[in-house]
Amino acid sequence: MFRLNRLTDYAVVVMSQMSASGAGLRSAQQIARDTSVPLPTVAKVLNVLTREGLVESHRGASGGYALSRTAEEISVAEIIRALEGPIALTACVDNGGSGCEVESLCPMRGTWDRVNDVIHQALSQVTLADLIADQQARMPAFARTAAPQVAK
Amino acid sequence: MFRLNRLTDYAVVVMSQMSASGAGLRSAQQIARDTSVPLPTVAKVLNVLTREGLVESHRGASGGYALSRTAEEISVAEIIRALEGPIALTACVDNGGSGCEVESLCPMRGTWDRVNDVIHQALSQVTLADLIADQQARMPAFARTAAPQVAK
Repeated sequence: MFRLNRLTDYAVVVMSQMSASGAGLRSAQQIARDTSVPLPTVAKVLNVLTREGLVESHRGASGGYALSRTAEEISVAEIIRALEGPIALTACVDNGGSGCEVESLCPMRGTWDRVNDVIHQALSQVTLADLIADQQARMPAFARTAAPQVAK
Repeated sequence: MFRLNRLTDYAVVVMSQMSASGAGLRSAQQIARDTSVPLPTVAKVLNVLTREGLVESHRGASGGYALSRTAEEISVAEIIRALEGPIALTACVDNGGSGCEVESLCPMRGTWDRVNDVIHQALSQVTLADLIADQQARMPAFARTAAPQVAK
């Protein structure tokens, strides 16, 4: 039913890697190498995340990218909103242009507000750190220790 | 981001009407008339809801449809699952057939499990009765009292 954009998935991969590599600045090239995500995709994701304030970009020879907050302070709601726009179960906007002729009279208008609210609350409670912890827990032990050292 | 199928919206309209009209059986024609939802759509929704156990169908001259439980006992999670399938934020299944060649090695596999869980929990806590109460609260007073008597 709910479908996340693939870019959102990549954003979590990129941000997880940035978190794992500590507070230092990372270039898009380094992140692409460490995550195996293609460079144009990494660049696109970093662009969006920087614009939305989840990543900070520093220019110059020793420049690069860093998370603007720790993984504990970044919620999944913020990541999804940055990549996909407002979190809302809006059936009516599906057809956009074709629109609904009786919208102003529609008894369903706002029906999903409560549902949107609980979903937003739920997604605000899960952090990037939670996703990283889940990934780590799922990895075999050798990969868990090796991962942060790969191809820096 | 999340988009509900329009049929799910209609299902809530249909079920709200069935709840408002009490415990008696209602024909698809009656429901279509009372909700202004086209009969073929009502029939389709009732078909799915019956198959998924949220609505009971009784055959015969005095037959018709009724909710299989009260609105307080039917969660939004159940309605969405009936109409849209499993509740999951699965980016990877987007491309279905084209698939992912490294799925078995993918570090992101299962990343969204926790997010899926919290969304499912959130949607399980909201009931059809909550949606109906929200609709009623939003109606002007005259419509609120008139609504159940319309075109029976």
